[in-house]
Amino acid sequence: MSAVQAVLFDTFGTVVDWRTGISTAVRAHHTGIDADAFADAWRARYQTSMEPVRRGDRPFTTLTRLHRENLTATLDEFGLRLTPAETDRLNRAWERLPPWPDSVEGLTLVRRHRIIGPLSNGNVGLLARMARHAGLPWDVVIGSDVTRRYKPQPEAYLRAVTLLELEPAQVMLVAAHNDDLAAARAVGLATAFVPRPTEHGPAQTTDLAPGSDWDVVAADLVDLAHRLTPRS
Amino acid sequence: MSAVQAVLFDTFGTVVDWRTGISTAVRAHHTGIDADAFADAWRARYQTSMEPVRRGDRPFTTLTRLHRENLTATLDEFGLRLTPAETDRLNRAWERLPPWPDSVEGLTLVRRHRIIGPLSNGNVGLLARMARHAGLPWDVVIGSDVTRRYKPQPEAYLRAVTLLELEPAQVMLVAAHNDDLAAARAVGLATAFVPRPTEHGPAQTTDLAPGSDWDVVAADLVDLAHRLTPRS
Repeated sequence: MSAVQAVLFDTFGTVVDWRTGISTAVRAHHTGIDADAFADAWRARYQTSMEPVRRGDRPFTTLTRLHRENLTATLDEFGLRLTPAETDRLNRAWERLPPWPDSVEGLTLVRRHRIIGPLSNGNVGLLARMARHAGLPWDVVIGSDVTRRYKPQPEAYLRAVTLLELEPAQVMLVAAHNDDLAAARAVGLATAFVPRPTEHGPAQTTDLAPGSDWDVVAADLVDLAHRLTPRS
Repeated sequence: MSAVQAVLFDTFGTVVDWRTGISTAVRAHHTGIDADAFADAWRARYQTSMEPVRRGDRPFTTLTRLHRENLTATLDEFGLRLTPAETDRLNRAWERLPPWPDSVEGLTLVRRHRIIGPLSNGNVGLLARMARHAGLPWDVVIGSDVTRRYKPQPEAYLRAVTLLELEPAQVMLVAAHNDDLAAARAVGLATAFVPRPTEHGPAQTTDLAPGSDWDVVAADLVDLAHRLTPRS
């Protein structure tokens, strides 16, 4: 652990609570629909929308733009009619997601001894505005539009390592998702799991526990900071 | 000015005092040579070393690596013999440059209302470690290894604008160098000049005053913050 010089964090679900953020934004402006169901439906299009980019069938497209396309489809699905300006405003809800209660304190503690940043499928603009809103004290913001790859593609992890001028074993990925950690470990990064058992709501059945012998398993990001040996 | 959503800063010379930082590092470990002259000689190779990359005659190479090559040449020039480990250590002096006295306060004030970041020929790892050491509160760190271009190439500015999901007129470059500002203005960025009359030492003759009608001319970065109208 003392070799780890940078700790990078999956963001959506691990650091911020996207479901609460999106459903709150939906509820604030649009009555008469199930806001939680809307948030789930919008997010359900997330992985699918990145697939053509991962396969190389579509040129790299930012997550802001994919979110916007997915929002249009979700609005249709729910029979909601919004103006383009209203649609843009709702799409910006991804920049105003609330952190989990332990996130800011945990990141601040980890940052005392290591470089910290997101390692997210979000793009730089989205992640930078999210960080300002949520108070996330990143040292660096390496977005997917920097690596030009969407996790779990290996280059998404390895290009971040290269930009930090480090070796894979000197970088740790922290995530609430076992598949993300498996992809990071496969290319040599250190790994830490934190459970976020309500990321998908009260009935969540996935990622409730570590799926492998990750280097660190922590209760939350404050606990993670305490488990990481300080670097001298 | 109220349109400006992000303020990006040239770094070497504008935010940090490279000559003092480098000469101090040289003086600390190597006696019997003129440390100021060594710093000047090392830096004098800076622009030249980027030229083959700008022309496309050399694949993109990070500034950390160019600095290392230039250091080897400068050591030869001064007849200094260092081990590879000592050379690496001295090369890291670029990560520990001191900020000008007004830099941290000025950046902190500008950051209240706008996204801030470096727009530097430095690379992400170098800039991130510099920021941690000097206490520079960047929101984003867009290095030259992200844009894959060295200023004053137009794409160095425009790719940073794109990553922030902004238009050129929504981004301001702050620099102590008139040529940098001219290149930024040529592609549509807002511009601010701050003089750093001792960047090159007490006998400096260049960039003592603004060379054009830049959008803002400020005495230092704190003055810059006061001159930028707050965004509501």
